[in-house]
Amino acid sequence: MSDHEKPGRDDLDDLITRFFDGDKKALARVITLVEDFPDKAREIIRKIHAHRGNTYVIGITGVLGSGKSSLVTKLTQRIRARGKTVGIISIDPASPFSGGAFLGDRVRMKELFLDSGVFIRSSSARGRIGGMSKATDDMVIVFDAFGKDFVIIETVGAGQSEVGISNIANTTVVVFVPGLGDSIQAQKAGIVEIGDVLVVNKADLEGADSLAVLLEQMLDSYTRQTGWRPPVVLTSAKDDEGIEEFLDEVLRHRNHIELSGILERKKKDRIAQRLQDIVEDLARDFIVESIGGFEGFGKLVDKVHSGGIDPYSAADEIKDHVIDRVRGDDEG
Amino acid sequence: MSDHEKPGRDDLDDLITRFFDGDKKALARVITLVEDFPDKAREIIRKIHAHRGNTYVIGITGVLGSGKSSLVTKLTQRIRARGKTVGIISIDPASPFSGGAFLGDRVRMKELFLDSGVFIRSSSARGRIGGMSKATDDMVIVFDAFGKDFVIIETVGAGQSEVGISNIANTTVVVFVPGLGDSIQAQKAGIVEIGDVLVVNKADLEGADSLAVLLEQMLDSYTRQTGWRPPVVLTSAKDDEGIEEFLDEVLRHRNHIELSGILERKKKDRIAQRLQDIVEDLARDFIVESIGGFEGFGKLVDKVHSGGIDPYSAADEIKDHVIDRVRGDDEG
Repeated sequence: MSDHEKPGRDDLDDLITRFFDGDKKALARVITLVEDFPDKAREIIRKIHAHRGNTYVIGITGVLGSGKSSLVTKLTQRIRARGKTVGIISIDPASPFSGGAFLGDRVRMKELFLDSGVFIRSSSARGRIGGMSKATDDMVIVFDAFGKDFVIIETVGAGQSEVGISNIANTTVVVFVPGLGDSIQAQKAGIVEIGDVLVVNKADLEGADSLAVLLEQMLDSYTRQTGWRPPVVLTSAKDDEGIEEFLDEVLRHRNHIELSGILERKKKDRIAQRLQDIVEDLARDFIVESIGGFEGFGKLVDKVHSGGIDPYSAADEIKDHVIDRVRGDDEG
Repeated sequence: MSDHEKPGRDDLDDLITRFFDGDKKALARVITLVEDFPDKAREIIRKIHAHRGNTYVIGITGVLGSGKSSLVTKLTQRIRARGKTVGIISIDPASPFSGGAFLGDRVRMKELFLDSGVFIRSSSARGRIGGMSKATDDMVIVFDAFGKDFVIIETVGAGQSEVGISNIANTTVVVFVPGLGDSIQAQKAGIVEIGDVLVVNKADLEGADSLAVLLEQMLDSYTRQTGWRPPVVLTSAKDDEGIEEFLDEVLRHRNHIELSGILERKKKDRIAQRLQDIVEDLARDFIVESIGGFEGFGKLVDKVHSGGIDPYSAADEIKDHVIDRVRGDDEG
């Protein structure tokens, strides 16, 4: 992105004013800045953080082809029908929300795009492993300060990568479909560890009931310490069936974690992790800058390549250089 | 793992001696230590790094159900038939190498387990996003010092996560199968960016030829700067067909990057990244330790939670504490 797309401080104040006036274009711009410009993210979050409300974050994950996007669409419609507003963050590159998938899917979602109570943001997931972005926490804060009642994060699940979403989401939904046996095996650990609500979507397909039974059996063999047994809900997003029950189960889970104090603990754990991440990012920036200005770095790389020094001893030399710079900053 | 599983220094010297004698049990133990005990990894890599040979690293990635493991088995047999030794690192939780998948797959691989020129290591991928481990570089060094001619890394591909393997592998193979159209769409960017050799496996299935044509068309629309156009190879691992051609294409790519100097540049880039990663890990350890000893941390978390301070300002306070500790170490 070119530099003149980054607004100056005055522009930013104006933008934030429009943001708090409920201007959707300002929201879109703020989200872009938060996602793409870390330094702007710092400034923006500083300005809006105190205006957070009580946004509830629902994470929806599942393999490709499980119909997550249709499910998000139908769930959003039910939430809207109850008078609540929704922000959607899609981090699934194959999702119609993200411009992937087929035109047909996007057309089906048109009604959602036209609802002023819904804001959809596709996150490009570029440079991110597993699809979860470091900016996602900040995006949730933005939606929260804007006044959204719910944020739904849609992400594609693959092996261990669902772990990311369960850290951010207050309720994590794992979506399954009949006929993808392999992926269930692969996701077995993840299912019982992260799913607060399990959904068998495309329940009109053969094998849906036996899949639900299989999931219940998996849940039987796993003891949770929180007193919550994840319900298994059958839905057919395409036919708009089971969605009301699905939303009810999500809200039942919300009620459970709110009353038990789990939600507050979860939020604090997430904040603690986020603070550590920010400090680590600052350290990383400093290290990258230090290496960039370290004349001996190229020689060390060559020496490791030729076998003259091992990577750990070479890294110790770089570490010493970085520490010298930290101490040197003291004098400056 | 309990603490007494960690050997002392004397045991380690003995272990390394047996390792250099070609003891496979010592190899297995060294790999475990490198993967699970970062402090032991440092010591071991320091001792064996100078004994590296010229291991060539082949990365094989593809979606679940693409038959990667069978392909790895057959490819390994062809490499063995040419008199070379192989180390396999499997980071795919659904792979029979990793104890996943079905008994039948594992039985089919029995012949590989019995070959003393092949060493298979399943990497648990626990706590790792996208499946690639920070220890993988060290594991390659271990196989290299042990004298393996080839290391094959098998990992499940999902969206952006293939990027990890292409950084470590010298030749990256992306495996496709007919009938999984969605995943090709999702992986489109990854295919042209990271695949050095593209394989259409299960070529006996309907749609294999048109999939190969589709891949060629994707390649047409993408200009590489290296002068290498990834070949598309049709294989049927199950029937042991196309494997010889597959190996030939891998070796042709090896030849190309060796002669053009790309391999050396790639290796140096990887070393530079690895050095930076190690320094970042050291910084992270220091930060975690500093936060653990920072009495004000819990209060800062509460303050962010209640809205009294934003995360970035709170992180700045933690950063100041960490910097004080770095400077304090100066005096100690």
